[in-house]
Amino acid sequence: MIYEQIIDVINKSSKIAVTSHMQPDGDNVGSSLALCLALQKLGKKAVFILDDSIPELFRFLKGAREVEKPSFFAEIDFDLVIAMDCGDLERLGKVSQFIGNTKLVNIDHHISNTKFGEINLVEENASATAEIAYKLIKSMGIFIDKDIADCIYTGIVTDTGMFQYSNTSEETHSIAGELIIAGVSPSDIFARIYQNSPKEKIMLMGEALKSLEFFNHDMVSCISISKAQLESIAEEDIDTEGIVNLGRDIAGVEVAIFLKQKEPNVVKVSLRSKCYVNVAIIAKDFGGGGHVRAAGCAITGSIESAKQQILLAIQKQI
Amino acid sequence: MIYEQIIDVINKSSKIAVTSHMQPDGDNVGSSLALCLALQKLGKKAVFILDDSIPELFRFLKGAREVEKPSFFAEIDFDLVIAMDCGDLERLGKVSQFIGNTKLVNIDHHISNTKFGEINLVEENASATAEIAYKLIKSMGIFIDKDIADCIYTGIVTDTGMFQYSNTSEETHSIAGELIIAGVSPSDIFARIYQNSPKEKIMLMGEALKSLEFFNHDMVSCISISKAQLESIAEEDIDTEGIVNLGRDIAGVEVAIFLKQKEPNVVKVSLRSKCYVNVAIIAKDFGGGGHVRAAGCAITGSIESAKQQILLAIQKQI
Repeated sequence: MIYEQIIDVINKSSKIAVTSHMQPDGDNVGSSLALCLALQKLGKKAVFILDDSIPELFRFLKGAREVEKPSFFAEIDFDLVIAMDCGDLERLGKVSQFIGNTKLVNIDHHISNTKFGEINLVEENASATAEIAYKLIKSMGIFIDKDIADCIYTGIVTDTGMFQYSNTSEETHSIAGELIIAGVSPSDIFARIYQNSPKEKIMLMGEALKSLEFFNHDMVSCISISKAQLESIAEEDIDTEGIVNLGRDIAGVEVAIFLKQKEPNVVKVSLRSKCYVNVAIIAKDFGGGGHVRAAGCAITGSIESAKQQILLAIQKQI
Repeated sequence: MIYEQIIDVINKSSKIAVTSHMQPDGDNVGSSLALCLALQKLGKKAVFILDDSIPELFRFLKGAREVEKPSFFAEIDFDLVIAMDCGDLERLGKVSQFIGNTKLVNIDHHISNTKFGEINLVEENASATAEIAYKLIKSMGIFIDKDIADCIYTGIVTDTGMFQYSNTSEETHSIAGELIIAGVSPSDIFARIYQNSPKEKIMLMGEALKSLEFFNHDMVSCISISKAQLESIAEEDIDTEGIVNLGRDIAGVEVAIFLKQKEPNVVKVSLRSKCYVNVAIIAKDFGGGGHVRAAGCAITGSIESAKQQILLAIQKQI
């Protein structure tokens, strides 16, 4: 029913802005580009407008180099705006200021979605917004070529962590299979996304692992990195995502801590748990947030003092 | 047709030995256990006999603790032997000495399979032998419960590297989807297999990364570890699989080298390539072997001399 409503407004529109959240990831980039490419196949003027730039990692996707900034709204009188993978209006950044009275469709899979659209297609059980984009494009009778398939596959793979998270369903796999038939090469996409780290990231991994320590009978692991160590490897900010997982992926470890000294007196804390400790509660106690198995916060003080405070909080739960 | 033949000999047998190759991995363990469990559901006496022990990692699978040694052949007069995931008789180890005149079925997906069985079900396009096991069990009309599904899923996930290798097909995903319906929890299986490294392995990763160097305009990466470093972390042999991938997964790197000093004068070399260098040829020149993207060899001499020799060989191809 909602699919029909969306297809109806698309059919009645000729100039469509597709938009999404800032700090883009594989799913919002992939689902937005897939929809743009599909709408263009219908002869629509469809433009992906984003208040951010596309990460280098995803620029191999078709259309990723033709993304416009929010000011582009002044150039075209759009009939329709479609927001992809965005939980609320605020995360659209400056785009939200330009929507005005234009008809707004909201397509997402986040449980926290505020249903800010005129039409809201929010499927919480979808592993990725790309999954919903796939179904919508198919419902419109548009042929899913390799370019569109690559975009959707990228969204699914990144939002399911390579089909490993609990959001991976039978439908996720069924769609992935159809995308392979459409021409996707899993090994190519994986190489582009996961075999493409800046060398500084791998060097930093080695540097950080020097600090690996264990507590509570090896049930807690801790890795830390100082501002001086970060600066010894690169001047700009290095992506440290994933380092905390090295500590988590050790047999017997229930909670992994990663401490990154952002400023001389500010430590960013990343927490992961494996089976039963709710790290969201721990992070919340320090003014942070997150999920049961992955959360984070910032603590004022030295690395050592942050470590002791976090260890104490973990020991209450373990 | 071959499926019918196999089902026919299974129906005519009551005591069945399922066996597989030494140095077991997720696929041969998973496919063998799945078939055993299915045959037991048919009321057969089915035993998994292996000339090796099941890696700790896979012992959570149902039946993994009831595996018998080759000498068990003396205790039961089997009607049928089914070899799973095994390219030739030799890789069965001592099991091959016990087969004698017993009817032998050979189920595998390796292109190099020597068709050593009386009936040979070799599907080179299957991503894993577990995929073939799934189809056979379904063809027999046996209900695939969660225990069987976990075994098959483990085989598929490990042999496709989490659905990333080029052997991942539409059928692979279609089966994975059905296994989720049967009760598999992807996140549980992933935690058991990929979040379960010995802490020495992660410590070694940090130690090895200290040596990370680049050559040929950062197109070649090299990581090495000495015997002294290895011994400083653990007395027994530590699994170093995966360390070479850290070097490969760097943007711009085409060939990654990992050098492990096995003996004062022997260096084990692991090679990986990303797009075009055929590392199998390089490894072969040094008496080793492998695949186009993953190969290995051993070189006599110091780490430094092995490095120089390998770099020279790579430079001819890059």
